[in-house]
Amino acid sequence: MACGEFSLIARYFDRVSSSRRDVETGIGDDCALLTIAEKQVLAISTDTLVSGIHFLPDIDPRDLGYKALAVNLSDLAAMGADPAWLTLAITLPEVDESWLEAFSDSLFEQLDYYDMQLIGGDTTRGPLAMTLGIHGLVPAGRALKRSGARPGDWIYVTGTPGDSAAGLAILQDRLAVKEATHSAYLKKRHLRPTPRILHGQALRDLASSAIDLSDGLISDLGHILKASECGARIDLDALPYSTALKENVSAERALQWALSGGEDYELCFTVPEMNRGALDVAIGNLGIPFTCIGQVGPESEGLQFLQNGKPVTLDLKGYDHFAPL
Amino acid sequence: MACGEFSLIARYFDRVSSSRRDVETGIGDDCALLTIAEKQVLAISTDTLVSGIHFLPDIDPRDLGYKALAVNLSDLAAMGADPAWLTLAITLPEVDESWLEAFSDSLFEQLDYYDMQLIGGDTTRGPLAMTLGIHGLVPAGRALKRSGARPGDWIYVTGTPGDSAAGLAILQDRLAVKEATHSAYLKKRHLRPTPRILHGQALRDLASSAIDLSDGLISDLGHILKASECGARIDLDALPYSTALKENVSAERALQWALSGGEDYELCFTVPEMNRGALDVAIGNLGIPFTCIGQVGPESEGLQFLQNGKPVTLDLKGYDHFAPL
Repeated sequence: MACGEFSLIARYFDRVSSSRRDVETGIGDDCALLTIAEKQVLAISTDTLVSGIHFLPDIDPRDLGYKALAVNLSDLAAMGADPAWLTLAITLPEVDESWLEAFSDSLFEQLDYYDMQLIGGDTTRGPLAMTLGIHGLVPAGRALKRSGARPGDWIYVTGTPGDSAAGLAILQDRLAVKEATHSAYLKKRHLRPTPRILHGQALRDLASSAIDLSDGLISDLGHILKASECGARIDLDALPYSTALKENVSAERALQWALSGGEDYELCFTVPEMNRGALDVAIGNLGIPFTCIGQVGPESEGLQFLQNGKPVTLDLKGYDHFAPL
Repeated sequence: MACGEFSLIARYFDRVSSSRRDVETGIGDDCALLTIAEKQVLAISTDTLVSGIHFLPDIDPRDLGYKALAVNLSDLAAMGADPAWLTLAITLPEVDESWLEAFSDSLFEQLDYYDMQLIGGDTTRGPLAMTLGIHGLVPAGRALKRSGARPGDWIYVTGTPGDSAAGLAILQDRLAVKEATHSAYLKKRHLRPTPRILHGQALRDLASSAIDLSDGLISDLGHILKASECGARIDLDALPYSTALKENVSAERALQWALSGGEDYELCFTVPEMNRGALDVAIGNLGIPFTCIGQVGPESEGLQFLQNGKPVTLDLKGYDHFAPL
């Protein structure tokens, strides 16, 4: 029988370390077979990561194994879904066993952490890239959609957006950060973003809409506003910054990265006035800051920015793979 | 807001031509949301197609749109599943609008034909490649697995394996076929293989195991035998050939391509003796020949080939992306 490809897959990806009860058939047949509990809705998302575009070509395979999954988990978090199954289609230029071992060890460590199971995939030869298909479950009727924001709702963001862009700049020698702890923190925010799964689950009955910050706050909040047919006012003075970011870049650069740096994988969500108290209780103990940065308005007002209480005009674009640079 | 990538996706892939009732949220949120009927099991498969490896770089985008889906549907067919949803992650070297229009038109034509819905995906810049995630539904307990073959079961194959390899050889100028109808037929079997969805559905209660022929009969039957812990005897004289193949290549070449040419996307399946009569009724009216080519035996006998009633030794390998050529 065929040997090379299949033994490669078998060795690194056909692990049974985590075995979920809802997986009737996992890797090894034409399809995986999955059962879904009553009153659960299936949430599916797909992301592709291409070497040189979505990650640096010399990235540590352990960081890549972590980030590839984290980026996809972030989409589940934004829907308030519980992680369940992963498919991994990976294209490799060559069979590098030490690379594969480091990558797959890191991936499975994260799969185990989230009680997820790898249920299938494909391995092909070609330029390094991968497409992950992530599957989660959410109680019927309780998913967090982009379309539920209403005028008057308050706009929140978790964590401190902009850190990931700073971390990337350090990795690419575009930014020098003297203090080692600051440098390590910012790089980690880029290489190992935390998917806000717990926040998503806690927000199910509290937030009116949610999205994760992959392209940048302006671009991603824009998706909420478009889907909800709303406008918004953002108070730029309220944007939360990490100490590491504040102390190492100008205020202008920090603002630019917070609004359009991308890859923070924090959640941006809207909460009706009547749920603000419950919100503080529900996510206040999760150990991550969350900050009110503005308010949803009518669609006719568009997206407005305030600084020192006055409207300002910004010329910032969200990160876009096909946009002219 | 971001413009290039998102308007590109919106224009070519965000169509609502088919709208399934089980799709609560399709394209346009962080995840798609899907509902699954009671007593249905979810079947999931993933395939990557890379330019120059899985399809010729100069392939007509309409053929590519067809084949990318057909190859994935074939995995559902092999499980006896009903097609439901597709995710498409596509990597493009450039935005070529006429290419995108032809590719997506062809893809959606097939999606509509199978009452499927595109529920998500990703578009990135890079060397031409795509990963499809296909989702189907099968009544609980009735999926066709690879592991159910038992000694004594009869081995069948649909259609005429080997045609796809001949079609590829014509397209690559390695084979000259004078008669235009033969040439067109063989090329079509390579470019536009028919996923045997109807056969898979009809086989649910009749076949003890099934697989689709993507790598070649030897390799793929081998997967059934390994999963079922069985051996088999194949009568090489029983292998079905198309007229187009028989009349244009040597008997030896026809045999080689039928056994290891790959990409036929026919079904190979096993049927217990007691179901053979019902089989003739169930798939006899589907218009595609199906042929008994051998019998499952005990694992200790391995995979044996008979020619003129006598055992013969073959040195053929299944198609393997990473195997040395």
